[in-house]
Amino acid sequence: MHDIKALTKKIGPLDAAAMAAAQQRLDSLTKPPGSLAVLETMARQLAGIQGTAHLYPPEKAILLMAADHGVVAEGVSAFPTEVTEQMVYNFVRGGAAINVLAKHAGARLVLVDVGVDADLPPDLGVVSRKIRKGTANMRVRAAMTRDDALAALRVGIEAAGDLADQGVTAVALGEMGIGNTTASSAVTSVLTGKPVAWVVGRGTGIDQRLLAHKIDVIEEAIALHRPDPSDVIDVLAKVGGLEIAALAGAVIGAATRRMVVMLDGFIASAAVLAAYRFCPAVRPYLMASHLSEEPGHAAILEELGLEPCLRLNMRLGEGTGAALGLTLLDAAVKILTGMATFDEAQVAEGPAAPATEVVGNGS
Amino acid sequence: MHDIKALTKKIGPLDAAAMAAAQQRLDSLTKPPGSLAVLETMARQLAGIQGTAHLYPPEKAILLMAADHGVVAEGVSAFPTEVTEQMVYNFVRGGAAINVLAKHAGARLVLVDVGVDADLPPDLGVVSRKIRKGTANMRVRAAMTRDDALAALRVGIEAAGDLADQGVTAVALGEMGIGNTTASSAVTSVLTGKPVAWVVGRGTGIDQRLLAHKIDVIEEAIALHRPDPSDVIDVLAKVGGLEIAALAGAVIGAATRRMVVMLDGFIASAAVLAAYRFCPAVRPYLMASHLSEEPGHAAILEELGLEPCLRLNMRLGEGTGAALGLTLLDAAVKILTGMATFDEAQVAEGPAAPATEVVGNGS
Repeated sequence: MHDIKALTKKIGPLDAAAMAAAQQRLDSLTKPPGSLAVLETMARQLAGIQGTAHLYPPEKAILLMAADHGVVAEGVSAFPTEVTEQMVYNFVRGGAAINVLAKHAGARLVLVDVGVDADLPPDLGVVSRKIRKGTANMRVRAAMTRDDALAALRVGIEAAGDLADQGVTAVALGEMGIGNTTASSAVTSVLTGKPVAWVVGRGTGIDQRLLAHKIDVIEEAIALHRPDPSDVIDVLAKVGGLEIAALAGAVIGAATRRMVVMLDGFIASAAVLAAYRFCPAVRPYLMASHLSEEPGHAAILEELGLEPCLRLNMRLGEGTGAALGLTLLDAAVKILTGMATFDEAQVAEGPAAPATEVVGNGS
Repeated sequence: MHDIKALTKKIGPLDAAAMAAAQQRLDSLTKPPGSLAVLETMARQLAGIQGTAHLYPPEKAILLMAADHGVVAEGVSAFPTEVTEQMVYNFVRGGAAINVLAKHAGARLVLVDVGVDADLPPDLGVVSRKIRKGTANMRVRAAMTRDDALAALRVGIEAAGDLADQGVTAVALGEMGIGNTTASSAVTSVLTGKPVAWVVGRGTGIDQRLLAHKIDVIEEAIALHRPDPSDVIDVLAKVGGLEIAALAGAVIGAATRRMVVMLDGFIASAAVLAAYRFCPAVRPYLMASHLSEEPGHAAILEELGLEPCLRLNMRLGEGTGAALGLTLLDAAVKILTGMATFDEAQVAEGPAAPATEVVGNGS
């Protein structure tokens, strides 16, 4: 763990001068100051991350971590465990929603097997970093050992580093793992202190009776293992998942390499919350995409202080919301780099300061 | 007016069989049923509009209507009237936000001068349909005559028809007109019955003092002219705007030609509300994009029963939110046409019915 802690020390703050320069340019563009709101915020944040107000278009990737969950044996999901493996094949063949939306967003899709409960052929086109064939059933025993959790974190750190080496500058988080809303609910409940019943949702589509059962299973697992909320690795090991830990590592790895981290829905965001608790310095690199139907997602975004800009009521995962978020980031870059200034366009300027400030000082 | 009423009779319902076929395909795709939510709703609606579940990619256009407002003489805007003309030149040169976002969305940008208070050269690249050089100051007299309002409606109907003739199948509504949040607030207050103070906002960026003044001006105009809420033309003529009436006409024209109508922010949506009150049959052709910061926008969308999927806190207009909405429509089309089915991908299916129905029937 010391290696990971040491790595987090390398995460720098955003470049304040670049952000100020970006803000100055945004305020000079032919639009009322601040009127593009979140698009302007994204452009300014990206300037801080890239270290320049002369933004370059993000090189985008969806980093999709796949793993299985022993807790599926408790009947908490609408789909059987085998679907994780089947969906990996579907990803490879290009038939899943994330294939369509990654292409739509102009992002490459990188698949990592960090714990699928199946033997995948080495030439499948999936990065093989399997730590174990799925977690244990957390209702009975810890999902994994502390060493497994740390190994999964390292998989994510390495994967992010590999993407950075390949020139990627914006990573969208994706995941596949039948049962992983159950693990994410457990992690979120422990880390936020909110009751399980508040954060748990219908996942891929269970009914009310199964929802009550899912809550029971998670509550029993937490009562059995008593994960320490102040020890993120303990929480990930006891009630987490291999793909969740790996995504948490990817967040840390991406921040050390000054890459944008685009959140997806509930599961990816639970991983981000874990990374944030492990190392709050990752926060400036985070961007929210959509708000999932899973109730725990709003709780996490609130804790992170992030506002989702897409409200599509989606609950699919895979990085589908994050892919759409990347298209908005592209739009933000184009606004900063493509619009004319008031001077260039010979348009009369309106109020000098952002309207929000004007109102704040108004009488 | 009889010609317009006759035209509205041509607006047909959506194709229910195509929508059912689209729903069947959506439910067969490798994802939990209903999990892409609004994207699925958009795809299904588009199937109903196109009359086939074999969706073709929308051919997209931003229809931007520009006009001036006499009420600017009352000091209701942060910008002077001249900015409307200056921004038209900016649009033509490609320097405005909508130029950047139209290109981002792969949409052509069509500019129509329906009442800019300036002489624009005929070779500027703007469709010249000027009815008059801006409206009158509605605090003193009716914004325009009833005939002017009807002429503006016809400009919009024709513009939509021209786009349809050119192969456009999805029209995003855009506008430019200094002072047009004032007119839109008046129209919205009269048509919804909500108090002016509830629907009026800061427009391009006025302070609290000017906001109070803007409310006074609108209330005085409504008290002076007493527009009849049951007579849309009366409302548009007395307290509306030339570009607002033209956009209302474009909605009617687009629906008669079975084109998608993508709403933008407050001003475009006020025009849509007017079109809807004139002819409720346009409703199935409407899609919401973003939720503006202008408070009246939420009131209109609620009345229309539309849910905005983008929450970017934008307040620029021009069609900027609608352009981003078009990118989500493209994503929806690609989901329906690009994903594999459970059969094709050999993935085990989960629950057969949409999860929302399962929960509704649960115990």
